[in-house]
Amino acid sequence: MTLPTHVRQTEPFRWEDIPLLAYKEDGGTHFRGVTRQILFPGSATLPAQLRYFEVAEGGHSTLERHEHEHSVMIVRGAGAVLVGMRIHRLATGDLVHVPPGTWHQFRASTNAPLGFLCLVCSERDKPVRPAPGDLEQLRADPAVASFIRV
Amino acid sequence: MTLPTHVRQTEPFRWEDIPLLAYKEDGGTHFRGVTRQILFPGSATLPAQLRYFEVAEGGHSTLERHEHEHSVMIVRGAGAVLVGMRIHRLATGDLVHVPPGTWHQFRASTNAPLGFLCLVCSERDKPVRPAPGDLEQLRADPAVASFIRV
Repeated sequence: MTLPTHVRQTEPFRWEDIPLLAYKEDGGTHFRGVTRQILFPGSATLPAQLRYFEVAEGGHSTLERHEHEHSVMIVRGAGAVLVGMRIHRLATGDLVHVPPGTWHQFRASTNAPLGFLCLVCSERDKPVRPAPGDLEQLRADPAVASFIRV
Repeated sequence: MTLPTHVRQTEPFRWEDIPLLAYKEDGGTHFRGVTRQILFPGSATLPAQLRYFEVAEGGHSTLERHEHEHSVMIVRGAGAVLVGMRIHRLATGDLVHVPPGTWHQFRASTNAPLGFLCLVCSERDKPVRPAPGDLEQLRADPAVASFIRV
């Protein structure tokens, strides 16, 4: 596949010929108001992908973990993220690193979307959602219990 | 190395505990007004780096090429880039892909900086600058001849 040299941003956080995708192919009720755009699909010599996710006001990504890492940069709006057992308030421009095997969930502010770039390896494992025992552990912390959406 | 989970943007395009670096360690007069910050240094399981470069008003990066690819997103200001023999005007939000072995040079606008994220492999070859014969080929096109700074 030949990648185009120059892809214009046609309106805020939309790009020419880059489709607006569902966050997850399988649908589900474990996330709310999330879209996905693949800005760089990876290549043989740069096996990493750069995606743009946008969580609508009041929405959230799936609470999940996986062995691959995330390197994230917030580029629009505000919100918060759970990484492990800690909740971090997020502003535009902030960076987030999600280490391997760590529970995480992004939530947009109630009055602003949360848009972020997310860098991952092209080859990566599938996310898993918490089993009842995992949820029990997460909910042992009251702040985490009130933050998570499952 | 353990990466911090959350790195705040402390002021526009500066981040806590991320040093503002020289564009190139070796100095040189083949670039002008460029700074570098390493936002994600790469890891064993995500062997890619995300850097933020900022070219001051009227400045330019080095005219160079290398076998590794660049995946770039403009996040501040405006300018232009030469990729191969084509010059592209750049606005905030635009994406640029520099294929392997392709001459490239970024120039900021005369009245705005050009700030961009640049994704590369952690393991990569060193850039090379044009030899006299390369410059002759580049300068065969009048638009390229007037664009490049060496």
